Amino acid sequence: MFEFVIDATSDCARAGTLTLPHGTVETPAFMPVGTQGTVRALSPADLKAAGAHIVLANTYHLHVRPGETVVAKLGGLHRFMAWDRPLLTDSGGFQVFSLEGFRKVDEAGVEFQSHIDGARRTITPERAVEIQWALGADVAMAFDHVVPGGVDGATARDAMERTLRWLERCVKRHAELKDVQRSVVASCDQTLWPILQGGAHLDLRTESLQRTLGLSDWTGIAIGGLSVGESKGVMYDVLETLEPRLPRAMPRYLMGVGFPADLVAAVERGVDLFDCVAPTRNGRNGSAFTPDGPVNIRNAEHREETRPLDETCDCETCTTFSRGYLRHLFAAEELLGLRLLSLHNVRFLIRLAADMRAAVRAGDFSRWAADWRRRYT
Amino acid sequence: MFEFVIDATSDCARAGTLTLPHGTVETPAFMPVGTQGTVRALSPADLKAAGAHIVLANTYHLHVRPGETVVAKLGGLHRFMAWDRPLLTDSGGFQVFSLEGFRKVDEAGVEFQSHIDGARRTITPERAVEIQWALGADVAMAFDHVVPGGVDGATARDAMERTLRWLERCVKRHAELKDVQRSVVASCDQTLWPILQGGAHLDLRTESLQRTLGLSDWTGIAIGGLSVGESKGVMYDVLETLEPRLPRAMPRYLMGVGFPADLVAAVERGVDLFDCVAPTRNGRNGSAFTPDGPVNIRNAEHREETRPLDETCDCETCTTFSRGYLRHLFAAEELLGLRLLSLHNVRFLIRLAADMRAAVRAGDFSRWAADWRRRYT
Repeated sequence: MFEFVIDATSDCARAGTLTLPHGTVETPAFMPVGTQGTVRALSPADLKAAGAHIVLANTYHLHVRPGETVVAKLGGLHRFMAWDRPLLTDSGGFQVFSLEGFRKVDEAGVEFQSHIDGARRTITPERAVEIQWALGADVAMAFDHVVPGGVDGATARDAMERTLRWLERCVKRHAELKDVQRSVVASCDQTLWPILQGGAHLDLRTESLQRTLGLSDWTGIAIGGLSVGESKGVMYDVLETLEPRLPRAMPRYLMGVGFPADLVAAVERGVDLFDCVAPTRNGRNGSAFTPDGPVNIRNAEHREETRPLDETCDCETCTTFSRGYLRHLFAAEELLGLRLLSLHNVRFLIRLAADMRAAVRAGDFSRWAADWRRRYT
Repeated sequence: MFEFVIDATSDCARAGTLTLPHGTVETPAFMPVGTQGTVRALSPADLKAAGAHIVLANTYHLHVRPGETVVAKLGGLHRFMAWDRPLLTDSGGFQVFSLEGFRKVDEAGVEFQSHIDGARRTITPERAVEIQWALGADVAMAFDHVVPGGVDGATARDAMERTLRWLERCVKRHAELKDVQRSVVASCDQTLWPILQGGAHLDLRTESLQRTLGLSDWTGIAIGGLSVGESKGVMYDVLETLEPRLPRAMPRYLMGVGFPADLVAAVERGVDLFDCVAPTRNGRNGSAFTPDGPVNIRNAEHREETRPLDETCDCETCTTFSRGYLRHLFAAEELLGLRLLSLHNVRFLIRLAADMRAAVRAGDFSRWAADWRRRYT
């Protein structure tokens, strides 16, 4: 049910096939983010048209609203959001640490104030796993302690050590739930992936990896705590340090990344999976990815432009509408504009991942990446 | 190019086929409203999936933004909004009279302040026709003087007389443009429909009809100045007064109507075409049409409801999502909710029109209408 096969490599870059209960995902792959159980402005049919094979949803947000029991009563997360392909749920660690307002961290877990109703709630590693079990995604993430980019070694070690202790509790609770579940229904299945921490400190990153690998036979592994304010150089250093030490036949998921150039740089450094709100958030702001770099569709230059947003793109937006019309939709604050740019940006990153896969299989990823960068930047 | 054939009748109710340059429309038919060149929250593909065969756009709004010259440079309204089926443009009369802010009416036309940039602009009957010619819809509407429901006889007569004088100018300018156009390209075609006025005054309505019919050989006729604050009884009286006097083989378009029960009542009184923002506006507010009356999806009762919005409906919303999920989308202020309820409501009115057509063809419209009303109210 949980399998990862490497189909080809080109230097550190990899092309693989990840098999999950709800289907397979060819990697490198970009996962659109459906924070609240919906990828903003897009329907499941749009996501399939964009070529998405796996979508991410957020444990924290769904726990706070509508609550995992409601989702479970409505048939679980797949049925709830009408997405029959693989799903991954983020554990809520990142949200608990990044959202504003009251929070208190201790060894038990995190007490925080709901951003919806102000109520105090506690998420422990066990609760994070229970919530994700109720949601029923193919992949659950361990509950981690995220610290901002650039914290000192002591702070980073403290969070890493806590993340490791919490990971043991997540593993234990996940195994218990699986055993209980197995006694009731045989068909339900979910895997748990750990999240590496350690900030910008390469020795801590290496230690986080080694101790994590010692805790269980993982089916995948995530690199967390990046894209949280550190420089690009730090991200590259961390990836380059981890790459030779990561088990080869295990999918590597770089959390919260990213923009087109970040995806290319990370695949060069051996990453397989990505998620980011950038394509939908930027799309709603009128910013579109193109092979020649970002385009702001609100700009006056597009007013009478009959060309599509991206002439190389096969999405509904680019095959149907002119830049002039898209600009009008944004000027007139029409909802369709938000959707059309979100759709294009998601399709752009999914196509970019597919293009990288093809380049890996062709065995010339470095040249492909150099060509891509020359045009994009 | 412009033809209307009556396929069947049942008492006053009619089933017809309207042929326009961009395709045919089976009547009774509901026209979704794309005020700014987009039916709010819906794509052209959504509209086709909902069964729309004709869409309305608004001359006033498109003139103010992006301007008819921009639309023309982007290939005309059909190409601009990527809608290859029939289009009808409202003349802007209703907007000029209903939007707040400065306006001055005299015999020449209306001077008003743009709701976008505050600039003073003038629309005359000739300009309204020129703008619509540049937009290039299949059907253009004459520029009329709309008065609120319930004005006295003198005010209603004044507006009706002005509407008739303006109608003559619209006809003249439309014919001139058509002649000029014919000398350049043979393929472009557009028809002009007049709008009846007269408020709630039945004698004025009759006079408006007779004098309008004397002005040209129309391919269709609109009933304006209803749904502007008068009671339902007034609307029914006006329709019943006009019905026996209207030419049989001419499509009758009741402007700005309406809600499901209004459509049924108007078809009973011989109307063929409708437009209204209600399905999309109400949809965005969380209100959905169902055969059992309106449903507010925000209500707490839908929280754990696995049933669809409308079990009889074949739209994407009803065949894919639970009420519980739709309620979550509205609670979480997710854009997808606005689209899914808009889509369902548009589909509901289009299906209602198709059901009425079938009832007319079956020859038992009165019984069908009584059954429908019993369930709906």
